[in-house]
Amino acid sequence: MKKIVTIGGGTGSFTLLSGLKEYAVDISAVVSMADNGGSTGRLRDELGVLPPGDVRQCLVALSNSSETWRELMNYRFEGGDLKGHNFGNLLLSALEKIGGNFTNGLREAAKILNIKGWVLPVSEQKMNLGIKLKNGQVLIGEKHLDDNKGVRKYGIEKVFLRPKVKANPKVIERIKEADLIILGPGDHYGSIIPNLLVDGIPEAIQKSKATVIYNCNLTNKRGETEGFDLDKYAQEINGYLGGDRIDLVIYPSGRPTKEMIARYEKKEGKNSIVSFQPNKIPQRTYKIVKADVTSKTIIKKNANDLIAETRSFIRHDSRKLAKVMMLLAEQKEYKKMIKKVI
Amino acid sequence: MKKIVTIGGGTGSFTLLSGLKEYAVDISAVVSMADNGGSTGRLRDELGVLPPGDVRQCLVALSNSSETWRELMNYRFEGGDLKGHNFGNLLLSALEKIGGNFTNGLREAAKILNIKGWVLPVSEQKMNLGIKLKNGQVLIGEKHLDDNKGVRKYGIEKVFLRPKVKANPKVIERIKEADLIILGPGDHYGSIIPNLLVDGIPEAIQKSKATVIYNCNLTNKRGETEGFDLDKYAQEINGYLGGDRIDLVIYPSGRPTKEMIARYEKKEGKNSIVSFQPNKIPQRTYKIVKADVTSKTIIKKNANDLIAETRSFIRHDSRKLAKVMMLLAEQKEYKKMIKKVI
Repeated sequence: MKKIVTIGGGTGSFTLLSGLKEYAVDISAVVSMADNGGSTGRLRDELGVLPPGDVRQCLVALSNSSETWRELMNYRFEGGDLKGHNFGNLLLSALEKIGGNFTNGLREAAKILNIKGWVLPVSEQKMNLGIKLKNGQVLIGEKHLDDNKGVRKYGIEKVFLRPKVKANPKVIERIKEADLIILGPGDHYGSIIPNLLVDGIPEAIQKSKATVIYNCNLTNKRGETEGFDLDKYAQEINGYLGGDRIDLVIYPSGRPTKEMIARYEKKEGKNSIVSFQPNKIPQRTYKIVKADVTSKTIIKKNANDLIAETRSFIRHDSRKLAKVMMLLAEQKEYKKMIKKVI
Repeated sequence: MKKIVTIGGGTGSFTLLSGLKEYAVDISAVVSMADNGGSTGRLRDELGVLPPGDVRQCLVALSNSSETWRELMNYRFEGGDLKGHNFGNLLLSALEKIGGNFTNGLREAAKILNIKGWVLPVSEQKMNLGIKLKNGQVLIGEKHLDDNKGVRKYGIEKVFLRPKVKANPKVIERIKEADLIILGPGDHYGSIIPNLLVDGIPEAIQKSKATVIYNCNLTNKRGETEGFDLDKYAQEINGYLGGDRIDLVIYPSGRPTKEMIARYEKKEGKNSIVSFQPNKIPQRTYKIVKADVTSKTIIKKNANDLIAETRSFIRHDSRKLAKVMMLLAEQKEYKKMIKKVI
């Protein structure tokens, strides 16, 4: 059975893992622990727990429990003091308190949700994302990616962790044994890179014999990754990995529909679809795999489903993405199935 | 299999049901839905749900799930906006919202907790307890039993429901089919009588061929049932039942230890142990069953376990109480086992 390690957090990981769950593979979902926004941020501040939000999404993706449990995990309270709190986050926080630490709580949650595979916090130490803007200003807290005007105005120079934290030993072990390491899809500075800032993670990925796949984002975020093309994303991730380690970068084979682009650009501005210029670089250290990985359905807005709400209009399709990952994992006939490998 | 209906709510029902669960009987726990204090009250106010607290305690008592689940259901958050909220209450509230109504939510909770028997809200309509004091003042809300100084100062003339609500048809059905109906133990005005104020309940109990047992409280509450003796309790319950329906009243065969009495009276004042005067009334409409039903262990204070915290020092023993109930249900040899039947 192929051993797959996914690295990310948030909705991107949810999409990827929901698809991978259908295959007979050994999945380890490594999750960023730097989130401090929304319900997760309030729980960190008020209860002193580790951030449950990203872990919750991965648990739900890998769960084989009832539909009620999946609904329950994502249910958000709508009134009073509880407003905005997510039931799944409260469950994880209560289990952490009862179990004495996050790992014990997570083990119980995994049992309750009957999950396939493993969900592993990248580190069990408390951390926050540091964001250095191009004007020199430093912000502490991942939530500033969304709420700080300076991010949009000046752009990001680099991100770091405060304090420096050590990797979860189980994550290092899984990376070492992996056949396939999949980075993304997911928020570039918010979900993917925070994992690569943890002491021991880049080194472990460098040493691993796994094929490293990077599922490049489909769209840019204003201020954060404004104007990024595929190579900029891949090179920046290789930079945080401490060397050119990515083997394959997945790029969607077709363009989104005009309607989708129009909707997206209305929200995020012009040129927010990630572009790829084949001749920009003479020789790449990674191969580009063009494949049909995008969703053609438009998600309807639903005030009660914040996952759908924050999900891009232009996004990966869970089944297609997993299928491509599995073809690459099996390393057979993928040249035929996937439209173009440069 | 004997069909047993318990009527109450709160810690008293928890004690009784925890014991009964060990026997091969068909249990239906009928629960008061008038609570509006604490975590339950906040959830009623802010989310518009039915009160989850009493139902939660009965679910935990009848649960065959893991120790973790039992801990989780009773876990209270300690910080921030969530402070004082009970995880089990949040679960029930979220399930009510997802299921569309309390009964659907309760059905899912019963599955999750793998309960033995049935937990049934006495009514599915919203209600509040009205409290008329002896000075004519009227208070609306069960929580005033605990927080209103007038209750202690003037005493209670009567309680009623506002608005009037109809019984859950399933409760009527269970009462009709019952072999044994057990009232209490539990808070007199807060847990037992609210059930008897629901339209249809007294009538159903009157019509039922079941043996009706009343587990008389062991202690009085200052202001509420100050100075009550066994007959006063039983007669008042018969009054709310609309006629002399109680068959048997359980009274503890031994006195609590001096140490226990001293501790209790320090908190609740002199003469707070319920007394019984055999010759007070020439002929009773109910039989008195003296039996060893009290606990001899002293509960240690634990700030995190509010059930223990609010539980009386002098209280029923779960196993002993259930054993006596079963002997009475089987109607065999109980005269030998139970110390005295007057």
